Amino acid sequence: MTGEKIPVAVLGATGSVGQRFVQLLDGHPWFQVIALTGSDRSAGRVYGEACRWVLGEAMPAWAAEMPLLPSEPEQTGARLAFSALPSEKARAIEPEFARAGVLVCSNASAYREEADVPILIPEVNPEHAGLVEVQRRRRGWQGAIVTNSNCTSTGMTVALKPLLDAFGLRRVMAFSMQAISGAGYPGVPSLDILDNVIPYINGEEEKVESEPLKMLGRFDGDAIQLAGFRISAHTNRVAVSDGHMVCLSVELGQPTSVEQAEAALLAYRVPPAAADLPSTPQPLILLRSEADRPQPRLDRMAGKGMTTVVGRLRPDPLFDLRLVVLSHNTIRGAAGGSIYNAELLVRQGLL
Amino acid sequence: MTGEKIPVAVLGATGSVGQRFVQLLDGHPWFQVIALTGSDRSAGRVYGEACRWVLGEAMPAWAAEMPLLPSEPEQTGARLAFSALPSEKARAIEPEFARAGVLVCSNASAYREEADVPILIPEVNPEHAGLVEVQRRRRGWQGAIVTNSNCTSTGMTVALKPLLDAFGLRRVMAFSMQAISGAGYPGVPSLDILDNVIPYINGEEEKVESEPLKMLGRFDGDAIQLAGFRISAHTNRVAVSDGHMVCLSVELGQPTSVEQAEAALLAYRVPPAAADLPSTPQPLILLRSEADRPQPRLDRMAGKGMTTVVGRLRPDPLFDLRLVVLSHNTIRGAAGGSIYNAELLVRQGLL
Amino acid sequence: MTGEKIPVAVLGATGSVGQRFVQLLDGHPWFQVIALTGSDRSAGRVYGEACRWVLGEAMPAWAAEMPLLPSEPEQTGARLAFSALPSEKARAIEPEFARAGVLVCSNASAYREEADVPILIPEVNPEHAGLVEVQRRRRGWQGAIVTNSNCTSTGMTVALKPLLDAFGLRRVMAFSMQAISGAGYPGVPSLDILDNVIPYINGEEEKVESEPLKMLGRFDGDAIQLAGFRISAHTNRVAVSDGHMVCLSVELGQPTSVEQAEAALLAYRVPPAAADLPSTPQPLILLRSEADRPQPRLDRMAGKGMTTVVGRLRPDPLFDLRLVVLSHNTIRGAAGGSIYNAELLVRQGLL
Amino acid sequence: MTGEKIPVAVLGATGSVGQRFVQLLDGHPWFQVIALTGSDRSAGRVYGEACRWVLGEAMPAWAAEMPLLPSEPEQTGARLAFSALPSEKARAIEPEFARAGVLVCSNASAYREEADVPILIPEVNPEHAGLVEVQRRRRGWQGAIVTNSNCTSTGMTVALKPLLDAFGLRRVMAFSMQAISGAGYPGVPSLDILDNVIPYINGEEEKVESEPLKMLGRFDGDAIQLAGFRISAHTNRVAVSDGHMVCLSVELGQPTSVEQAEAALLAYRVPPAAADLPSTPQPLILLRSEADRPQPRLDRMAGKGMTTVVGRLRPDPLFDLRLVVLSHNTIRGAAGGSIYNAELLVRQGLL
Repeated sequence: MTGEKIPVAVLGATGSVGQRFVQLLDGHPWFQVIALTGSDRSAGRVYGEACRWVLGEAMPAWAAEMPLLPSEPEQTGARLAFSALPSEKARAIEPEFARAGVLVCSNASAYREEADVPILIPEVNPEHAGLVEVQRRRRGWQGAIVTNSNCTSTGMTVALKPLLDAFGLRRVMAFSMQAISGAGYPGVPSLDILDNVIPYINGEEEKVESEPLKMLGRFDGDAIQLAGFRISAHTNRVAVSDGHMVCLSVELGQPTSVEQAEAALLAYRVPPAAADLPSTPQPLILLRSEADRPQPRLDRMAGKGMTTVVGRLRPDPLFDLRLVVLSHNTIRGAAGGSIYNAELLVRQGLL
Repeated sequence: MTGEKIPVAVLGATGSVGQRFVQLLDGHPWFQVIALTGSDRSAGRVYGEACRWVLGEAMPAWAAEMPLLPSEPEQTGARLAFSALPSEKARAIEPEFARAGVLVCSNASAYREEADVPILIPEVNPEHAGLVEVQRRRRGWQGAIVTNSNCTSTGMTVALKPLLDAFGLRRVMAFSMQAISGAGYPGVPSLDILDNVIPYINGEEEKVESEPLKMLGRFDGDAIQLAGFRISAHTNRVAVSDGHMVCLSVELGQPTSVEQAEAALLAYRVPPAAADLPSTPQPLILLRSEADRPQPRLDRMAGKGMTTVVGRLRPDPLFDLRLVVLSHNTIRGAAGGSIYNAELLVRQGLL
Repeated sequence: MTGEKIPVAVLGATGSVGQRFVQLLDGHPWFQVIALTGSDRSAGRVYGEACRWVLGEAMPAWAAEMPLLPSEPEQTGARLAFSALPSEKARAIEPEFARAGVLVCSNASAYREEADVPILIPEVNPEHAGLVEVQRRRRGWQGAIVTNSNCTSTGMTVALKPLLDAFGLRRVMAFSMQAISGAGYPGVPSLDILDNVIPYINGEEEKVESEPLKMLGRFDGDAIQLAGFRISAHTNRVAVSDGHMVCLSVELGQPTSVEQAEAALLAYRVPPAAADLPSTPQPLILLRSEADRPQPRLDRMAGKGMTTVVGRLRPDPLFDLRLVVLSHNTIRGAAGGSIYNAELLVRQGLL
Repeated sequence: MTGEKIPVAVLGATGSVGQRFVQLLDGHPWFQVIALTGSDRSAGRVYGEACRWVLGEAMPAWAAEMPLLPSEPEQTGARLAFSALPSEKARAIEPEFARAGVLVCSNASAYREEADVPILIPEVNPEHAGLVEVQRRRRGWQGAIVTNSNCTSTGMTVALKPLLDAFGLRRVMAFSMQAISGAGYPGVPSLDILDNVIPYINGEEEKVESEPLKMLGRFDGDAIQLAGFRISAHTNRVAVSDGHMVCLSVELGQPTSVEQAEAALLAYRVPPAAADLPSTPQPLILLRSEADRPQPRLDRMAGKGMTTVVGRLRPDPLFDLRLVVLSHNTIRGAAGGSIYNAELLVRQGLL
């Protein structure tokens, strides 16, 4: 990228994922935020006043002064938009932007299940970006909607990809312990989580059981053929600020030793299409050998929050392999993932 | 029980499980504490001074004044002893008591794997108490060692028993989120658990994978025949004070609907041998129908901490059934369980 | 009390303080709940379904089945009502009940500052109940409104009373660390309090600086003469479920040693008018001598949550005395306090 | 600084403050770590294995490979040493280094009270560095011991300095809520702090009441004349990982409005001697105007953890002014402060 930065908008900028977009786009080498949108209630106020900032990193000075706009394409004037809208609003608003020629990189779940909308993880399935052309053709849009996956699915999908490639996958049992930031702000009441665990997250298990099959599926130029393995998910909320942990028991397609699995994880490389982008994780996968890692507080910021941290690789008495995966849910699993998606799409000339 | 109470000792009374023994034995209808033992370092001081009490319930006044004795049978003078000794000390000390004619109800893991030592859960396997006679015959002891199970194994074993009886069990995937009190005091450093999860507990997965097979095995009058199913465990430490949660995926011996499983759990009754004892849980199993229960803070004190709380009964895409089990780890899973064991043994005339 | 129990209503029963009323009134020797009221939104549903129960103690079975009524006197049919209404609703609704002949024991702050409305702490100022007659005369009500104090003011007022009586008070510096349950449910978002402290609670410092002066004032048969000392308050929210801690630096009316202060605290007795009631705290004040007590988790349930726990009595380099006070904010500082107030009023024939 | 970096040692590098030294010295423009020392138990092992790393930032690769040395001057071979030794060890070891010609910048409290040992906060009292010459003359050392203050004293001293300069100080009431990292590792047991507050920290109140008087005192070329005001401290431990909060009530030397106090805080500048050093805080003091700030999770990393964040400036009903101060206890209050001290001493030619 040389010359001018690409002007971008952040839709739904006041929520916790919206704040992550603002924070991660501060100083981004390719993108410059020119518009922030908020709810009708907050529109007209400046961001610094309308937004209850919940991140430990300070709000960028430029953002504090920006007026909040309504979420309408003609108001924002950017050809690339990052959407942190709540899912029900995303359902109505994102197509308006796409129709108006805007490429929407969305964190919302509203369109993830549509056949012509890709769920991208550039390290895993950059070729799924090809669906954008299908989508444009089918819908007659100049823009497009591209999604990133559910924050719990993300890390486990990155960790499963090298295993799928090397050994095949049959069955995956996934148990999550998820951070409160995944529920947004105000989100989880403190009385519900202090000295407690909540063994339920509305709609989450369904997403974790289906999204990885799409992301790990094969794009045949026209549609995604879902991956053929099956997933069972138990999802839980724990008293952690950021960082989703997932314990996995994995049945592979062939007999595999822990050493072979470890070698496959270590050998996996970012596909060339997604390599050397500003948000490419470094490293892609960090394999820890200590008995008690990964841990959210210690490992979530690996690779600036973009690295997938894997540990406790060991045999499974029932399936083949057990492992633990940690991924930063509002960076790699949300705003950071969407930005990485946008970088991929820009490089591929899809903007 | 009429007349005099049975004098009992608590071995290792100053630790967190020892404290639970003291608290739960306060006002017990059958047992009266006449001796508390501590480490060499604390022996000679009174309990109220030597013990850093960590429970929310107040220390009983009678305990505060008791002198701490060394852990030697002739010093304690009780024929029934509850052991909260650390495992390595239990290995040396408990046989001395058993040899001296004392019935030791132990929370330590030191002897759980010995073929002639029962791991008792009275609601589940009261007939295993018969091993006491085998043990006495084989070892020439007047007393005996009887153990309760690992605090994580306890709740899941109670929940699995009705399923095993009704449908048979093939495979169990167990994923735990365990309370910090399970590690004793000082136990888990706060820097390790605030805003964090530790995906590892030393030696725990091995116990969770083996103890239920013994407890759910068949006593043939001479030995325990292990149950024939297999378990895979992922054990984790979370920021919860009391109450171990376990998510289970269960493969049954035959096709079973959620309704049938629910009916089996609801129909299960405490075996007559273990019914109507002072510590018999009421109810034995509490089945919750809300989507987000059980939760440690809200459910751990069900049945005074002796009830096993089960929820989220639902189909499993890979196995047959998913459920969540909660059990109070220092009551049902430790001191309360040992006291219940002692009540069973007294009723059976094994004291 | 012999014979029939007194029928009572709980207004605003679904919130966290409303739940405490329900839980504490379960099995109360004098009072029987005949009506629970909720918001317009919840009216018509049964309590067990409309209420998201947040207490570790189970919801009483009788409450689960009760229909929620609107907060109107003719609907509830009780002559005694406990109000857990939010303050703005209390302002409109409580006078309707009082006008209709109902004695309202309120936890809301709406009327605490009215000259003819007492803020009662029976251990401290039972004679202030005399204001009820003044209020009835002045307002022409058959019923009345009687309040308990702000949950932070309560414990410190109990602890200051013996010092005021014995030595006089000049200046009090109060620093609080308050539990999340004080903000109700959903209340404090977990992202705001995990690994954090919030040094601000809206309106709290004003209450802590004024209410104790009224409660420790003198009732002259017609009005309260405010106590003549002054208070400065710093109020903070911390990650504690229940139990408000207050650090106090106290300037007394005369030179006083720590031993004299301790003796005054130990010698203080519940006034006869408030003694031997069902909710009379036992003990009234618990003085702890350990260097590191009181602590919320260990001490909040002293005296079933009604006892004021005091510790760290020591000299102050600037004033005379430093101490730490702990009081259970939703029991002694809210629902339990209101129930104790009602018991006092019933005994005094003011129902 | 041009040319070679100054070789430095970190004494007691495995503890939590030692880890902060290692992390903050990674990439330092002036200093290069050439030696890490540990306890006798860990000496001989490499740092990466001997150290249980507790920071969210990753351990620098160069540190992981360094062998741990014994804490002896001839072993470390550096002329500048940062000491994170426990106080009792610091008492014996630091003078050995000073005698051997090493300039010891210490975080330990062992020598803070010695008349010829400065407690430096470069933003506040850089001229106290002059005591180094006095110390060398008096003790015949080539090296010296220079300390930073207690982590709780640091932030409040920075905030008090502009007030002292502008208005004079008479009395300060200080109430702290301190992070668990201040107690080191393993430090505070999780059972002591989950859902809890501990109103006591051993030896802390004495330090908070005395150290600021020395730091804010006047160096007359030969000794420090203590500042003439008085402090009363209440110190508490709360469930926060990093960041000490202190609520202050301040009696000034003259009538002062909140606006005047605010202006004084805003006008205060780093003294030229301490300005433009690598660790000079930017900004020195961050004054927040929101009602509910500072907060540890949101504000502790201001100025890379070196900035003192002040908020809630308001009148005090008893004294003149109330405010809340937040300072990162292991950066500004410990390792970062020591490094800043070393930079000051190097610039002044005292190495």
